[in-house]
Amino acid sequence: MYFKDYFSIWDKLTPAQQDRISDHVSSRSIKKGTIIHNGSLDCTGLLLLKSGQLRAYILSDEGREITIYRLFDRDICLFSASCIMRSIQFDITIEAEKDTEFWLIPPDLYKELMEESAAVSNYTNEIMAARFSEVMWLMEQIMWKSMDKRIASFLLTEASIEGTNTLKITHEMIANHLGTHREVVTRMLRYFQSEELIKLTRGTVEIIDAKQLQVLEN
Amino acid sequence: MYFKDYFSIWDKLTPAQQDRISDHVSSRSIKKGTIIHNGSLDCTGLLLLKSGQLRAYILSDEGREITIYRLFDRDICLFSASCIMRSIQFDITIEAEKDTEFWLIPPDLYKELMEESAAVSNYTNEIMAARFSEVMWLMEQIMWKSMDKRIASFLLTEASIEGTNTLKITHEMIANHLGTHREVVTRMLRYFQSEELIKLTRGTVEIIDAKQLQVLEN
Repeated sequence: MYFKDYFSIWDKLTPAQQDRISDHVSSRSIKKGTIIHNGSLDCTGLLLLKSGQLRAYILSDEGREITIYRLFDRDICLFSASCIMRSIQFDITIEAEKDTEFWLIPPDLYKELMEESAAVSNYTNEIMAARFSEVMWLMEQIMWKSMDKRIASFLLTEASIEGTNTLKITHEMIANHLGTHREVVTRMLRYFQSEELIKLTRGTVEIIDAKQLQVLEN
Repeated sequence: MYFKDYFSIWDKLTPAQQDRISDHVSSRSIKKGTIIHNGSLDCTGLLLLKSGQLRAYILSDEGREITIYRLFDRDICLFSASCIMRSIQFDITIEAEKDTEFWLIPPDLYKELMEESAAVSNYTNEIMAARFSEVMWLMEQIMWKSMDKRIASFLLTEASIEGTNTLKITHEMIANHLGTHREVVTRMLRYFQSEELIKLTRGTVEIIDAKQLQVLEN
């Protein structure tokens, strides 16, 4: 597959703009666990995912984490190019959750294209609005949902992403996704186990009763 | 003052575009307490504030609230025109906190301008990025800051907005700004009073020791 097959507004660019992109876009691959972008001082560029999975999260001064959103095939990562917009004033860290292949669009080039082309700029607006909607959804979860519901929901989402009910994940990792403490997660998972919703072994959480977890989630 | 003096990219529009805006923008004034936009089904239009103060908040199913951001003179409210972008998928309510005067830009017109003009579209990107940054700031507050710090910070911000240390505000209103329960606010304010940081009377909170509140906030 070519870049143009992934970049949905390719046909709205002029031939000259298409050439400039083709000349400057590069294909990269990174290993699971790589931190590809770290805070607002970095301006890595836009990432357009071919395959793999990225996680965007924020960090507290004490090293606590919460996952803000995740990116999959064909998703585009805008905030790894925070220097393209003056008003992006927050620090985000982006990490590969799986081995990941992506195209890297240099930030200067993208900024130029946004200034020239309403199509590129509106595309950017839609990406940002989509991320904004995810963050607002997360805000609602944090504000109005109790931790048992959030953990149930997280386990079901993970199972759906991974295509298996046996999740290789530690309590610490779950805590880092949800922005809570490991102890809180451990207590809740043990409660889920006592209710026969899940089965815990070292380094795995196995979903036994997905239906009941769904009931709990809502 | 004219619309063009408030709309910072006026000079980047063509004369024809300027005329279209002039023909369709209308000036409105609303009283304190008016709900001007309510959820994603509404598509009121863009609001450009001349004077006054608006509050954007989200609501839980149980009627709990949390303030997402506030708008002052010259600010522009984008999410009251959520129909201009497909990817805006969340419900926000916008209420006048003071008597407010604003210009209303019809959503269809603005959408057309965004499609024609990279300048308008990039302006929109910057507005959205600014709101995004505010929401990320709020997320950090909620996740990593304890309620005593958040209440201290809220009182100092209010005093700065209102230009007075005697705030006409109920415990319920503070709770609705911060997304917590009234009882939590009351307990904390009584603690602040016992520490001689504030003085409580019916319907007012008076800041006595702003310096100490600032220490607490950080």
